[in-house]
Amino acid sequence: MKIQLLLTGNELMAGDIVDSNSAMIAQQFKTLGLEIFRKVTVADDLELLISEIQHISKNADVLIINGGLGPTTDDLTAQALAKAADLEIAQHPDALAHLEHWCKKRNYELNGPNLKQAMLPAGCKVVANAVGSAVGFNLHLNGCDIYCTPGVPRELKQMLTEEIISDVASKYPSLAHAETTRLQVFGYGESRLQEMLDTNFPDFPQTLDIGYRASMPLLELKLTSKSASDLTLKTEWLNKIKVLLTDHVVHEITDKPVSLAGKVNELLASQNKTITTAESCTGGLIASQITQNAGASSVFQAGFVTYSNEVKEKQLGVKSETLAQFGAVSEQTVLEMAQGAIKQANSDYAIAVSGIAGPGGGSDDKPVGTVCIAWGTSQVIETTTLFLPGARSYFQQYVAAISLDLIRRLLIKSNEVPRYLIERILKK
Amino acid sequence: MKIQLLLTGNELMAGDIVDSNSAMIAQQFKTLGLEIFRKVTVADDLELLISEIQHISKNADVLIINGGLGPTTDDLTAQALAKAADLEIAQHPDALAHLEHWCKKRNYELNGPNLKQAMLPAGCKVVANAVGSAVGFNLHLNGCDIYCTPGVPRELKQMLTEEIISDVASKYPSLAHAETTRLQVFGYGESRLQEMLDTNFPDFPQTLDIGYRASMPLLELKLTSKSASDLTLKTEWLNKIKVLLTDHVVHEITDKPVSLAGKVNELLASQNKTITTAESCTGGLIASQITQNAGASSVFQAGFVTYSNEVKEKQLGVKSETLAQFGAVSEQTVLEMAQGAIKQANSDYAIAVSGIAGPGGGSDDKPVGTVCIAWGTSQVIETTTLFLPGARSYFQQYVAAISLDLIRRLLIKSNEVPRYLIERILKK
Repeated sequence: MKIQLLLTGNELMAGDIVDSNSAMIAQQFKTLGLEIFRKVTVADDLELLISEIQHISKNADVLIINGGLGPTTDDLTAQALAKAADLEIAQHPDALAHLEHWCKKRNYELNGPNLKQAMLPAGCKVVANAVGSAVGFNLHLNGCDIYCTPGVPRELKQMLTEEIISDVASKYPSLAHAETTRLQVFGYGESRLQEMLDTNFPDFPQTLDIGYRASMPLLELKLTSKSASDLTLKTEWLNKIKVLLTDHVVHEITDKPVSLAGKVNELLASQNKTITTAESCTGGLIASQITQNAGASSVFQAGFVTYSNEVKEKQLGVKSETLAQFGAVSEQTVLEMAQGAIKQANSDYAIAVSGIAGPGGGSDDKPVGTVCIAWGTSQVIETTTLFLPGARSYFQQYVAAISLDLIRRLLIKSNEVPRYLIERILKK
Repeated sequence: MKIQLLLTGNELMAGDIVDSNSAMIAQQFKTLGLEIFRKVTVADDLELLISEIQHISKNADVLIINGGLGPTTDDLTAQALAKAADLEIAQHPDALAHLEHWCKKRNYELNGPNLKQAMLPAGCKVVANAVGSAVGFNLHLNGCDIYCTPGVPRELKQMLTEEIISDVASKYPSLAHAETTRLQVFGYGESRLQEMLDTNFPDFPQTLDIGYRASMPLLELKLTSKSASDLTLKTEWLNKIKVLLTDHVVHEITDKPVSLAGKVNELLASQNKTITTAESCTGGLIASQITQNAGASSVFQAGFVTYSNEVKEKQLGVKSETLAQFGAVSEQTVLEMAQGAIKQANSDYAIAVSGIAGPGGGSDDKPVGTVCIAWGTSQVIETTTLFLPGARSYFQQYVAAISLDLIRRLLIKSNEVPRYLIERILKK
């Protein structure tokens, strides 16, 4: 089965943005065991779009068009497809109903530019968009099954996973024997994971596929069996992989992927426990990740962003002698930050971090990338000092992830020392 | 002048990597005022490559082929181009000399696979690669100037900047007159902005191009003049657009785009002022956006994440009567949160937010999407109640953006009431 992509957008041609949508589309089709064989990207140019659609439709079984569904005059997909298929453009009742509902819910006026999004090639089938104003649409041309999809990544993703992939699978019943299991892993990069699997599993079966997807800070490992007869083999090797990766496996995806904070919230809620945060170098990032999840209020009541020494003393009761003797970036300070936060927030668990995010502020003793982390309960608080060099935002994200993972490991009562604590510890 | 790209690589089709090379190529050509108008990506397949090269060479003035120059059997570019142009493949003396020098310098043996990199279409011109083993090459086919370039990004970059761009410029001396100005705007969506420009500027000149790029929560508006004679016209219309959009223009990009928090930090630093945050529904997001910027410690010392009522009282001194009478999501509560935060953090400015992020917790009176915001100084604090329905993460991002924008407007002493305060105010 031959699948092609057609991407449209001046911003894609101008180099203003990097196209991540086509990788997403390829990954989604891979779950059906299908590959994209050719991809064309053009600017928002009507004649060019028409000629590409006509040409590709004669040479592919499925064509995914991405982008150009928006409300502005440079969004040309519906118009181009109608011209290519020699159809009228007409207001589609399903698309109009979607737009009316969409605008009403948001208290927007349904204006002229928005109404344009309901003008679709006559006779096409609407593809639902649960998260955006632009519906997708589907029609046949020259024996090619054409799906038009939105350029906004989260809308595209939702439309692929909820609508298009299952639609394609239902039309081509011989597919759909491929089955993928996905593990979310924290603490291993892609090349390290590949090396571990190569070393430990020289007899890994050819009929199973392993794929990776970085979704910082987590890595997704995908194990795919391509035929029904390989399902038990997949289960068997999945278990071997889980044993190899131990508690570095954060989650096996059955429904949706999780975030580290989401996993921590889920574990806290199931154990009826609460957490607080005392953040210096991450500046509120850990608290914001925890509260991104619905229902966070049952596990989180208060967080402290204590950037200056004065505030560390005043808000969290860190002793001025501790700060004077060991400095703000020290295990003693983060220990007292965690203790103070637990007391102030009256919580069961705490995370406290203090580090040097850079680019300034480093010293020989404590270079940029140094971070002290404290994590635990009012009974036991552990501390460590890690070295995580990299850009400021990378450092902040990584510190947040490690802190949350350390709490996750406490909550699942893991006895294992995670790889990052061994490899990233600051050698003095 | 029509430029096309042809990218080759199985990894590009499989979704394993995201293609950043084409953005790099586009940016490099933009320095000459040139745009890529079409891009084709295919797997490493000889027949497909030959047919694409033949087709594109008849429809473009310049073709950049990227990838497939390596030593392995799946690197097919030289072979495909030779077949497409009906040329022999032969050992090229310049390429051989490069390889010999390359291997000698590194003490490598010049082996079979490497020698393959000297086998090029007969009569082509070698393009130097100062940082890698694979030389590029250039030839003409069907009136199209074809450059073959390496897939390794740093080799590609060097070859573009040191060789190809100047080569193209020397061949086409009339280039280099397009110029783009970019404005970052907050408070208008793409469709609204388009409508405003259409309504207000019916006489907008055809020789200027307007483009948009959503970069949530900001929108980038790009104004491009395509020839040297249009530069003053562009300046003139840029000023008209700025007048129309008033203080909704956050930044005119000269160097790098800014974030709202980055702009606020910059304004605070230049005025020697500090800020604090008291967050309920955004859970630390505003503080984390402020502290994402290097140098944040000069404008930010403390932030408060006060999720529960108890913590709002204890940390920020919100009165229990206020909470009892008006509720946690009320202008009275956020006012006291802001006052308490300024006092605790000893800061000049404060943002305080409390709202219902959902999906649960809404009521008829205060539906999901309701947010109260307080912003100001110890002298004057303003408050408002807005209605921003949408998914939880969208709501949180939007609340953070509006809060930061309100502070930005205070700092630039804007007298204007922003559009979102008029349109998004909760109608009671």
